[in-house]
Amino acid sequence: MNPSVFEPRHPGFDQRTRESFARQAAMRTLGATLASLEPGRVEITLPWAEPLTQQHGFLHAGMVATALDSACGYAGFTLMAADAAVLTIEFKINLLAPAQGEHFRMIGTVIKPGRTVTVCEGQAYAVDGGREKLIATMGCTLMAVVGRENIHG
Amino acid sequence: MNPSVFEPRHPGFDQRTRESFARQAAMRTLGATLASLEPGRVEITLPWAEPLTQQHGFLHAGMVATALDSACGYAGFTLMAADAAVLTIEFKINLLAPAQGEHFRMIGTVIKPGRTVTVCEGQAYAVDGGREKLIATMGCTLMAVVGRENIHG
Amino acid sequence: MNPSVFEPRHPGFDQRTRESFARQAAMRTLGATLASLEPGRVEITLPWAEPLTQQHGFLHAGMVATALDSACGYAGFTLMAADAAVLTIEFKINLLAPAQGEHFRMIGTVIKPGRTVTVCEGQAYAVDGGREKLIATMGCTLMAVVGRENIHG
Amino acid sequence: MNPSVFEPRHPGFDQRTRESFARQAAMRTLGATLASLEPGRVEITLPWAEPLTQQHGFLHAGMVATALDSACGYAGFTLMAADAAVLTIEFKINLLAPAQGEHFRMIGTVIKPGRTVTVCEGQAYAVDGGREKLIATMGCTLMAVVGRENIHG
Repeated sequence: MNPSVFEPRHPGFDQRTRESFARQAAMRTLGATLASLEPGRVEITLPWAEPLTQQHGFLHAGMVATALDSACGYAGFTLMAADAAVLTIEFKINLLAPAQGEHFRMIGTVIKPGRTVTVCEGQAYAVDGGREKLIATMGCTLMAVVGRENIHG
Repeated sequence: MNPSVFEPRHPGFDQRTRESFARQAAMRTLGATLASLEPGRVEITLPWAEPLTQQHGFLHAGMVATALDSACGYAGFTLMAADAAVLTIEFKINLLAPAQGEHFRMIGTVIKPGRTVTVCEGQAYAVDGGREKLIATMGCTLMAVVGRENIHG
Repeated sequence: MNPSVFEPRHPGFDQRTRESFARQAAMRTLGATLASLEPGRVEITLPWAEPLTQQHGFLHAGMVATALDSACGYAGFTLMAADAAVLTIEFKINLLAPAQGEHFRMIGTVIKPGRTVTVCEGQAYAVDGGREKLIATMGCTLMAVVGRENIHG
Repeated sequence: MNPSVFEPRHPGFDQRTRESFARQAAMRTLGATLASLEPGRVEITLPWAEPLTQQHGFLHAGMVATALDSACGYAGFTLMAADAAVLTIEFKINLLAPAQGEHFRMIGTVIKPGRTVTVCEGQAYAVDGGREKLIATMGCTLMAVVGRENIHG
């Protein structure tokens, strides 16, 4: 489970992942930042923002999922070959507590890299007054896509 | 599986659900509309919009999940008691095809209502040039929450 | 969603699937029968049996999952190429009601076939005194595996 | 995530959990043993056995799920009230590698206990020649059931 055991196949994995993140308009809509990036592990942070909330003023479960899915997807992407693009096949999220807080940390970690299929786990933490709380966990399956003309990066 | 077998416990379920939907800021961010509402079934539509996309220009999987989760959540809410609020416990989404299209139809259906726990299914369709394509399916578990002061509706 | 739209890639899909099912020792342990087989859809039946139960005398959720996973896996396998073997990547099951009954029908259906990745849905029904009840639903992702020496069929 | 932070509500949690495990006929069918039990964490071991295999001679994914579901279920049960029974609402399993080995360790851990709903995680390891390999991960939601006459323990 130690991300440091993962060897990136693409030496330019760092720049490539950052560029792809910058192209995700959804991350701008979330006000999300790529806080940390290493082979097999990505952390995304975002502030609480009213446009992302559900009817009780918590972050919408789907918005939590959006950030976690990107954290997992980019964690997987750091380990993919130079000519691969990444697509999410499926994910499952458990909401453990309401998403209330000043900001949120979303951590995606590869637990099983693969040439075609990669499996990741995600954890979402709410940060409030300096205290952290685990609010959601994700299991996520990714596919490395090669050679489809309209999918790159 | 026929939604018409479901008997709402709250006679004002229609108005209550519409009001709650109107309070979901995330639905405004998605440009989403409550297209149809009946006991145990809710349909939400939204247009493609660049701020919701991932790096390939498709709707972000998390944004598809956000709309599907609301469709499922409100489908369940139509059947809940007058004093209940609805929270998502967990959901799982399978992405069957890239979310490209002019607009999207998200359908949430109750498959097992319960006093505390309700199970729903969701289907997401992309509509392009008058043709529909199933792009995602969701399984979703909801909880009816009663008596928490900061959670109502 | 109509299974009849699926074209098998392997003309001998029927015999191949039946032979593989016959090699699943777990299906014998369940007392399971391959009740119906067509391209993209498989139905498995099994009787209630005490060795498969949990502490309340219901079928163990994992045993329900075992039969549903095989139904989904073989539904996918009917559409795979002649040189492919099938492995389950992941599945998720919702238990809607206790698995009590005289026997059980497990239906697996392909909702999205693919060269590498196939997505299926499963439904489990309990049959008691001639009445059927939906007791579980499954979402399942399969991978077609080619060229691994110890995995065939 | 430290199980030692969990306070059992029922002082007799250990004996109660062991008795319920002993009543799960499915665990005998699996040849499973309750290897370790503490508040919020349960470990189950089982040997490879031909009657549990799929067509390639690996443990059937559903049999892996059966043992993991029991590990998660009993982990949750250790923290439930004296009058509660435990039912699985849903689980999701990712199969990371073929389940081949001499024996298997299944670990269930509570990540969020609750009066009604409890969320657990499971890890399955294959042990072969003294080496361990993570072969599956599970996310699992449980419900504490009180006052249903045919469900106890």
